[in-house]
Amino acid sequence: MSPVRSAAAPPAPPAPPVRTEEARSALDRCRALARPALARALRELDPWTGEMAAYAFGWQDVHGTPAPGASQGKGVRQTLAVLGAEAAGAPGAAGVPAAVAVELVHAFSLLHDDLMDGDETRRRRPTVWKAYGPGPAVLAGDALFALAVRTVAHTPDAVAPAAMRRLSTALADLVRGQAQDLVHEGRPWQGAGAVSPQEYRVTAELKTGSLLGCAVATGALLGGADEDTVEALNLMGRHAGVAFQLVDDVLGIWGDPAATGKPVHGDLRRRKKTYPVLAVLSSGGRAAQDLSALLAAPPPGSTDRPGDTDDAWAARAAALAEAAGGRSAALAEAGRHLAAARACLRAVPLAPGAARTIDALLTRLHDRTN
Amino acid sequence: MSPVRSAAAPPAPPAPPVRTEEARSALDRCRALARPALARALRELDPWTGEMAAYAFGWQDVHGTPAPGASQGKGVRQTLAVLGAEAAGAPGAAGVPAAVAVELVHAFSLLHDDLMDGDETRRRRPTVWKAYGPGPAVLAGDALFALAVRTVAHTPDAVAPAAMRRLSTALADLVRGQAQDLVHEGRPWQGAGAVSPQEYRVTAELKTGSLLGCAVATGALLGGADEDTVEALNLMGRHAGVAFQLVDDVLGIWGDPAATGKPVHGDLRRRKKTYPVLAVLSSGGRAAQDLSALLAAPPPGSTDRPGDTDDAWAARAAALAEAAGGRSAALAEAGRHLAAARACLRAVPLAPGAARTIDALLTRLHDRTN
Repeated sequence: MSPVRSAAAPPAPPAPPVRTEEARSALDRCRALARPALARALRELDPWTGEMAAYAFGWQDVHGTPAPGASQGKGVRQTLAVLGAEAAGAPGAAGVPAAVAVELVHAFSLLHDDLMDGDETRRRRPTVWKAYGPGPAVLAGDALFALAVRTVAHTPDAVAPAAMRRLSTALADLVRGQAQDLVHEGRPWQGAGAVSPQEYRVTAELKTGSLLGCAVATGALLGGADEDTVEALNLMGRHAGVAFQLVDDVLGIWGDPAATGKPVHGDLRRRKKTYPVLAVLSSGGRAAQDLSALLAAPPPGSTDRPGDTDDAWAARAAALAEAAGGRSAALAEAGRHLAAARACLRAVPLAPGAARTIDALLTRLHDRTN
Repeated sequence: MSPVRSAAAPPAPPAPPVRTEEARSALDRCRALARPALARALRELDPWTGEMAAYAFGWQDVHGTPAPGASQGKGVRQTLAVLGAEAAGAPGAAGVPAAVAVELVHAFSLLHDDLMDGDETRRRRPTVWKAYGPGPAVLAGDALFALAVRTVAHTPDAVAPAAMRRLSTALADLVRGQAQDLVHEGRPWQGAGAVSPQEYRVTAELKTGSLLGCAVATGALLGGADEDTVEALNLMGRHAGVAFQLVDDVLGIWGDPAATGKPVHGDLRRRKKTYPVLAVLSSGGRAAQDLSALLAAPPPGSTDRPGDTDDAWAARAAALAEAAGGRSAALAEAGRHLAAARACLRAVPLAPGAARTIDALLTRLHDRTN
């Protein structure tokens, strides 16, 4: 199987501006709706972990001074939770506990993953472990995790058990996905032990899809949706998460640093096992050999490679991966998962306005530049 | 207030051997009852975190070879969960999901706390972060945490919400207690910012009491107890936890290394803010000044203190803390919490056999030597 060669789909046309605007305004509206409840939840923390949590959410800087919000996340997960409730015909407010829980879980996983991965910056600021120390970052992550559980445990008894099961599945999946990710890092680029594109997809679904699925499904559950609807939305979110991760990989290599806030070709420099690279390597041709050799080479500037720079190396690797179809393979795969997400969305009866907004959000997840 | 001076209670007489035997056999029985379910839960983990978890529980060594069990914990928490169900008149098996959940949470908190505290050994073996690395230890802790939530989320719908709320409170308390503990470490021994014995008690209740309370309360809940009974048992467990922690502090300074597996005077050498030390310091007398000076001194063997050794320093500090009443103050305080725990146990109707066994367990928690 050669996913690279078969990925000759033409690039999707850009979304009409009105859909982009619809998605952006939904993100703003849902973030504003969930924010007071999220802030209330954080006030339950002790002052120290509360301070780290506010920093992690981009609400304040490392000195405790309120920040203008430029470093807060997009809020995709909370938006999906609110839209899930609305898709079930309930007011968006019904989904707010799910929104709070998934944002807390997302923040927890970023805190711990950044530490495990040794990542020193996120959204143009030092990561929590870099700013506050590794031990405090572990503690703050644990506090956010506990708070997420607490939030769902305090939903009405009629829905709490099902909501808890959704959350606990997402938690277990996130950890399993991170474990796979760390294990993949230690595996070779090619040969018997290489990470296949299929293994990548499984990991992406666990690491990213599970929480997106949990968000929209739990929102719908709190909004009174039946089990079929909840599960369809869960699958929708899982596919959307894989697409999201694939687009992230493309942006991590070819994204505009001014938009992403990340260094150019960053994921290549860090030798991350991204889909574009894995797709090229698994295609087995000459390009695979060349890219594999580049990735296995000693660091630029070492004695074996006089005069070579990291920038030049990364640019060569990026050009090679692109010429060999890695970028288009990733985007085609993202398109397939997006189509699958849309099929899930159409499979069950939903409030039309909310379904339309979720659709616009899917488009934005795919077409985003940051 | 001088808790040291007021703590002139005579030492409690040793427990009759039959009660000690009753407690020991309850620990063995309940551990055996919960073990298959705990092992089943761990099989849900991915292989890597599952391996670390089995090591953390003392079931296998770092090479994956089954261990004889010498390094497994006492199992106080799982025993309380099973006895909680029995106290409610149900078979002990009804409490097993609570037993599994609290053991998972306990293991999670040890993994992360050992990392934050820099502790390199536990039960005579390298801690998980020391054996497998800090990142993997964070991940394994997260996996155990998620599994605990999952375990309680899958109890019957009629009890799951209340059980989840109990668990989520314990989780939040544990993290808050660890945060306080880390903050206390950075505070001075004496003066305005000193840690008071009262602050110590609050932290001990959060760090140790909350999970013991959760264990017995959730066991009773799953066994069908009413809310008054569940809450009385929760308070019983919280008092027992404070007593447990106080005894731990005494053993950490004056315990027999052959029994505890910890170095003689270990908690003094590590400058831990234990109750015996805090009680002496807060008493405000000459002994407080002397002990404070010892604790604030530069490390033995440094140029300011030629010829002094760490052993000699620790022995002097231990003798001073004992002479000033620190040890007896801690044991008297433990005795008071034990009495309060027993009062909670008598306050509600319980199955007499189980109540008697819990009482024996309280005695053992107090009289233990390791």
